[in-house]
Amino acid sequence: VTTLGIIGGGQLGRMLALAAAPLGIECVAVEPAEKAPAAIAADVIRATYGDRGALEHLARRCDVVTVELEHVPVDALGWLAERVPVRPSPNVVAIAQDRLLEKQALRAAGIPTAAWAEALEAFPEGTVVKRRFGGYDGRGQVMVPPGGTVAAVLDGDCISEAVVPFERELSIVAARDLDGAVVTYPVVENRHADGILRATRAPAPRLDSRTQAQADGFARRLMSAWDYVGVIAVELFQLVDGSLLANEVAPRVHNSGHWTIEGTDTSQFEQHVRAVCSLPLGSAEPWGVAAMVNLIGAIPDAAAVLAVPGAHLHLYGKEPWPGRKVGHVTVVAAEETELDERLQCLKLC
Amino acid sequence: VTTLGIIGGGQLGRMLALAAAPLGIECVAVEPAEKAPAAIAADVIRATYGDRGALEHLARRCDVVTVELEHVPVDALGWLAERVPVRPSPNVVAIAQDRLLEKQALRAAGIPTAAWAEALEAFPEGTVVKRRFGGYDGRGQVMVPPGGTVAAVLDGDCISEAVVPFERELSIVAARDLDGAVVTYPVVENRHADGILRATRAPAPRLDSRTQAQADGFARRLMSAWDYVGVIAVELFQLVDGSLLANEVAPRVHNSGHWTIEGTDTSQFEQHVRAVCSLPLGSAEPWGVAAMVNLIGAIPDAAAVLAVPGAHLHLYGKEPWPGRKVGHVTVVAAEETELDERLQCLKLC
Repeated sequence: VTTLGIIGGGQLGRMLALAAAPLGIECVAVEPAEKAPAAIAADVIRATYGDRGALEHLARRCDVVTVELEHVPVDALGWLAERVPVRPSPNVVAIAQDRLLEKQALRAAGIPTAAWAEALEAFPEGTVVKRRFGGYDGRGQVMVPPGGTVAAVLDGDCISEAVVPFERELSIVAARDLDGAVVTYPVVENRHADGILRATRAPAPRLDSRTQAQADGFARRLMSAWDYVGVIAVELFQLVDGSLLANEVAPRVHNSGHWTIEGTDTSQFEQHVRAVCSLPLGSAEPWGVAAMVNLIGAIPDAAAVLAVPGAHLHLYGKEPWPGRKVGHVTVVAAEETELDERLQCLKLC
Repeated sequence: VTTLGIIGGGQLGRMLALAAAPLGIECVAVEPAEKAPAAIAADVIRATYGDRGALEHLARRCDVVTVELEHVPVDALGWLAERVPVRPSPNVVAIAQDRLLEKQALRAAGIPTAAWAEALEAFPEGTVVKRRFGGYDGRGQVMVPPGGTVAAVLDGDCISEAVVPFERELSIVAARDLDGAVVTYPVVENRHADGILRATRAPAPRLDSRTQAQADGFARRLMSAWDYVGVIAVELFQLVDGSLLANEVAPRVHNSGHWTIEGTDTSQFEQHVRAVCSLPLGSAEPWGVAAMVNLIGAIPDAAAVLAVPGAHLHLYGKEPWPGRKVGHVTVVAAEETELDERLQCLKLC
C-alpha cells in the first residue's frame, strides 16, 4: 500500500484524499486547524505545517509527500525532502511562495508578465503593490492609481507591478509525471470578486487554439524548467489583442480546476495523486462544457442545487462564515446554451 | 449535517461513503469484519449486522439508514425502522434475501422468470436447485442435468428452477427517489465465471430500444409495487428471441453498476445516497461506452492499469485471497472499437 503525506488538510487535501482512496493510496495530512476537511478520508496529524515531530511521523510513514498549499515553511520541506520524496520539490514551493522569485522564474522561462519591479516603483498605468510573502485570495496587495504614492502602502517586502488592462482572467491547469510526460486541461475563464475566485467556465468561452497553445506553452516551459512533478496552475490575463500574460503560479491543485472532477475523465486531484505517486497520467479531455461556482460564506439547500440537471455539490465540511469557501457546485452540460440554462436554474451566480 | 447509516462496511459501503462525502453527508457503517473497506471514508462500528447496541447507536446518530447487502437480519432492520427511516424498507430486503418470496414478488408484478417451483421438482430442460436463503456469487445453488435427481442436493429450504437456454446475461440498475421519480441506467451485459461476475459491458453491445424498454419496465414495476427508495439492480437473462427473463433482484447498489462512476454523470453510489437522503436524482446518461473488469484474488500493477487510456483503478483495501473481489477496473471510451482496443491493452479479461 502506498501512503501519501499531504502538508495541509483543507478542502484541497480533502479532494486529494478522496481521489487517492480508489487507487488504494492512503493519505496522512498535517493540519493545525481543528475539524480539518481532509479528515473525511485521511488521517490528520494536528500540528503546524513545520512541526518537526509531525514531519518525522510523515517521513517514517509515507512513501511520498506533497503540499496542498504553498505557504509552508521551506526549511521544513527541505528537511523532509532529505528523508522522503517531496513532490513538487521544496525549491519550487519556495519560488511560488515568494512573488519576487516567482516573477524572476517567469522571466527566466521566457514567459511574459505585466511590467514589474523589485523596488517600489510607480507605473504610469497604475500600480499594484504586492507583498512578497503570504498573499492569497486578494490579500496582501494594494492597487495604487496612476499618479498615486506607492511607498509604504503595505508592510514587509513588496514588489510593484503595472496594472494590466486585461480583457479577462483565464487559467490553465496542467500535470507532469516523473517521466516528464505532460497533460494540460483546457484553458478556463475565471471571475473574481473581492480578490476571491467566484466562478470558472470550462473551457473558457470563445477559446481559440492559439490561446490554448500559448497557455500550454507557459505551463510546459515552467514545468520543464523546474523538473516539476504534480499538478500546477498558471493564472493568466488575456489582453484585448488576445495575447496572454502570466499572473501567478500555484504549485498544486487549484480552485479553477475543480470542474475537472465531473468535467473530464481524470480530475486534477486524481492526476496529482497519480503524478506524485509515480503513476502514469490520465486523460484531461473534457466531456462537454462545465461551470464551477464557489460557495462562499453560506451553504445552499442541497436539494435545490441537485434538482438542476448536471449539477454536482461539493461541501468541504467547514462551518460557514463571511468570505469563507465552504464548497463549490459544478454544472456540466453538452454545450454552452444548455450550460447557461442550467446555471440560470441554479441561481447561485 | 446529514448522517447516513450503512449496514455493511464492504466495498459497496466504501463507494457509498466516498460518494456521500462531497454532498456533506457523513457515514457510519456497521461491519463485523476487521479492516472494513468502508473505513476509508466512514466511521465503522465493529459489530454483527443485528447487534442491538450497534443499531441503537445508528438510530441515535443517523438521519436515515440503508444497507449495502441483503443478508441482514430482517427483525433487526424492522426494529431499526421503528426508530429511524430505513431505505429501502425492511420488507423489501426480506423479499430479496429469500428466493421464494423474490420469485413470488416477480410473479405478482407480472415480470417473467424461468419456470420455478416451491417444491423440489425436476424440469425437463434441466434444473437449478437454489437455497432460499444465503446464496450469492453462485454459492448455494446446484445444477442438475435433465433426468438427474433433484432431491437432497442441498441442505435447507430450496426452490427449483428450470434451466434457461439464454443467449446472454444482462442487468439493469435503476433508482427511485422519495417522490417516486425514477432514473434507469442503460442495460449492461455481464460475463460470469464460477458464479462470480467477471466483467460488464455498458451499454450492452447491440442493445436495442425494445430490450432497454422491457428491462426499464421490470425495474419500474418492481420499484413502484414496493414503493422503493434507493438503487435497485435486476439481473436478467436474454433469450435467443431477444426477450428478457428476470433472474434475481438486489435491493442495493450492484457490481454491474460500478462502471457508472466514470461512465455517467451520476454514479449509482451518488444516486443511492441522493435517493435515501431525500435528495433529487441525477442524470444516468452514459458519456460513451465502458467496461468494468473485476479484480479477483490478486491486485494488478497499478501503473500498468493506469497506462491504458480511459482506465480507472478501484481498490477496496482488501487483502487478496483466491476468489475474493479486491477491486475493479473501469475503462471508458467514445465507442466500442476504441473500447476493445483499450481492453486489449489492459490484458485483464
